[in-house]
Amino acid sequence: MADAKIPYSLNSKAVAEATYAWLHKRGVTIQEIAELVMLLQNKYYPNLTMEECVQNVEMVLSKREVQNAVLTGIQLDVLAEEGKLFSPLQDMIEHDESLYGVDEILAFSIVNVYGSIGFTNYGYVDKLKPGVLERLNDKSTGQIHTYLDDIVGAVAAAASSRIAHRKQAEREQELGLPQAPEDIEDAAKRLAARDGGTPK
Amino acid sequence: MADAKIPYSLNSKAVAEATYAWLHKRGVTIQEIAELVMLLQNKYYPNLTMEECVQNVEMVLSKREVQNAVLTGIQLDVLAEEGKLFSPLQDMIEHDESLYGVDEILAFSIVNVYGSIGFTNYGYVDKLKPGVLERLNDKSTGQIHTYLDDIVGAVAAAASSRIAHRKQAEREQELGLPQAPEDIEDAAKRLAARDGGTPK
Amino acid sequence: MADAKIPYSLNSKAVAEATYAWLHKRGVTIQEIAELVMLLQNKYYPNLTMEECVQNVEMVLSKREVQNAVLTGIQLDVLAEEGKLFSPLQDMIEHDESLYGVDEILAFSIVNVYGSIGFTNYGYVDKLKPGVLERLNDKSTGQIHTYLDDIVGAVAAAASSRIAHRKQAEREQELGLPQAPEDIEDAAKRLAARDGGTPK
Amino acid sequence: MADAKIPYSLNSKAVAEATYAWLHKRGVTIQEIAELVMLLQNKYYPNLTMEECVQNVEMVLSKREVQNAVLTGIQLDVLAEEGKLFSPLQDMIEHDESLYGVDEILAFSIVNVYGSIGFTNYGYVDKLKPGVLERLNDKSTGQIHTYLDDIVGAVAAAASSRIAHRKQAEREQELGLPQAPEDIEDAAKRLAARDGGTPK
Repeated sequence: MADAKIPYSLNSKAVAEATYAWLHKRGVTIQEIAELVMLLQNKYYPNLTMEECVQNVEMVLSKREVQNAVLTGIQLDVLAEEGKLFSPLQDMIEHDESLYGVDEILAFSIVNVYGSIGFTNYGYVDKLKPGVLERLNDKSTGQIHTYLDDIVGAVAAAASSRIAHRKQAEREQELGLPQAPEDIEDAAKRLAARDGGTPK
Repeated sequence: MADAKIPYSLNSKAVAEATYAWLHKRGVTIQEIAELVMLLQNKYYPNLTMEECVQNVEMVLSKREVQNAVLTGIQLDVLAEEGKLFSPLQDMIEHDESLYGVDEILAFSIVNVYGSIGFTNYGYVDKLKPGVLERLNDKSTGQIHTYLDDIVGAVAAAASSRIAHRKQAEREQELGLPQAPEDIEDAAKRLAARDGGTPK
Repeated sequence: MADAKIPYSLNSKAVAEATYAWLHKRGVTIQEIAELVMLLQNKYYPNLTMEECVQNVEMVLSKREVQNAVLTGIQLDVLAEEGKLFSPLQDMIEHDESLYGVDEILAFSIVNVYGSIGFTNYGYVDKLKPGVLERLNDKSTGQIHTYLDDIVGAVAAAASSRIAHRKQAEREQELGLPQAPEDIEDAAKRLAARDGGTPK
Repeated sequence: MADAKIPYSLNSKAVAEATYAWLHKRGVTIQEIAELVMLLQNKYYPNLTMEECVQNVEMVLSKREVQNAVLTGIQLDVLAEEGKLFSPLQDMIEHDESLYGVDEILAFSIVNVYGSIGFTNYGYVDKLKPGVLERLNDKSTGQIHTYLDDIVGAVAAAASSRIAHRKQAEREQELGLPQAPEDIEDAAKRLAARDGGTPK
């Protein structure tokens, strides 16, 4: 309960933690999302490791816009599962109605955090439903993942975009090209490692 | 009532009607949205009538994408008002948290139905909060309109875009230019009028 | 040449005609785009005809937002082919650089005209590059279609979304459900047919 | 100069430098964009300094998606100024045609890099045209800035969003809250400063 004297102040860490907690509660592991990333990217980067995929998924999930979309989508799934939405929204989300596209809209705001280059990857996994996406789409479980399946695909697509950006930066470094200012996140990680802390 | 033998089939009319019903229940009239449109457009079209503004708002509200966004947004507002969302989503929506942007994302999907030319109008009314938007933003009422205020601004912006398209078509007709195929909606209205029915 | 006395007035028909003319000049037929639509939709609608696919592609192409995106994208392709862009934009478009995503952004504004439900179809064809998209991606021809391949996929995806909307309307009519106001375009076509004209 | 033996490899630094060079060539200074940011944000953060505004504009401009949009937009403005686009695209861009919205679409991809919370700020400055935007909109100069004025407003809006994110992080630090992983960019700056380099 809020104390009237303390003005509302968002706690970003609580938002980040709730994102991880809810993904877990709804049965999705970071590892599974990372596997989608590997599926999307290993033909372009044969040396890509699962560890890198996991790390890139985590960087995507560290963004507030992503956390907002994940939490909002999962909330709507959960409420639909409990039958608590008003009609006809309840029906549309419960049945993953094909003309209901708000789930795609939220997914899109996630893909977008690393730019438009992720749109294609999103559409591809959303159509083929590999790995975890197949399970999330299984309508026989009684669970409703109308939002979550799109969200998971979108996180994987955004992580793929992030990898494309970093790999380009690495290539340029290897070529001895003057460095563009894009590797700030890696820099932060190096700093954190040196300081004994961890930025994530 | 659903019969187990009848597979789920979306009833578009029910979706349309729920949209109007919920706007009404949350205290927003079509007239008020039309007033925002008039405010945005009368300096460009001095002869614009309130009737035209109302009609254009109705055409925007007849789109399924718009109805989906309106219903989803209002549902989240209502649940936040009842304190039924999980934390910290409850807090973010309840306090219209400035880093929570999913409301803007839904608003954007509405603006977009008549293309990107509506973005500016949306931002403008969302900043100035004229008319109905001021009331929806009054945090002292106990009501929560985190989504609805953005949605109403977006509907007004989309209606403004629609007017811009139709006015151009009218200008070209007056100039005796060969007609582009954009006036299908008006055509539909003429047809409906002639048939004694009404398409909206 | 503009006559100083005549204020600029957009001729929508000229914009529409240029869109068709430039698609043709760049080697893309409406039929080929319709084939992508058929590929995307026939598993959902086994009775879908090529004629319907063509008609839906034409309705997508009749939208000003779509025409604007098509013309702008083709213009950039043509200028890149002629080597007339400044560096490094010339290089990025010429090589369909993977970190250059403005082509996807324009494609997206096209997909969006019938809502977010088309995102998946766009990503899917953009990844698999069936039919005309394979030809447009053949880098050995000397032609540059960095924008056009995404645009063609986007038009096909938007047409698919439009079909999903109309098929739902048809299903509801067959079920004798009260009609939602979505079939205005068909109404316009019926009106035009009756009047002996054609709205398209 | 391209050597046939060296495969194309994007030089990110060249893209970044071209972005700055072309903004300068088209008469826009970072200072002026920062002034728009100050105008948008100082009522929320009275202690905001011009130096912070400049720094945030620079961080926005360091993003590849932003650079791509800036360069593409300026290229189209320049070509329109030289009369080198095909008709009717030439006319639409030359006259900043109200139904031509591709400039807004590019602007939007810029605003989006720090999420949807920037949409409102974009629309607001785009409507009011303060400062540099008024000059860019002066149609009497013979210069064409159809894209650039929207781009500049979008960069300012994105920088404003970035400030909102950082200020929240600062507030949470002051409150002694556990830190969310959002300050990686600042971390990178500290690292760079310590290493004697500059991540820009």
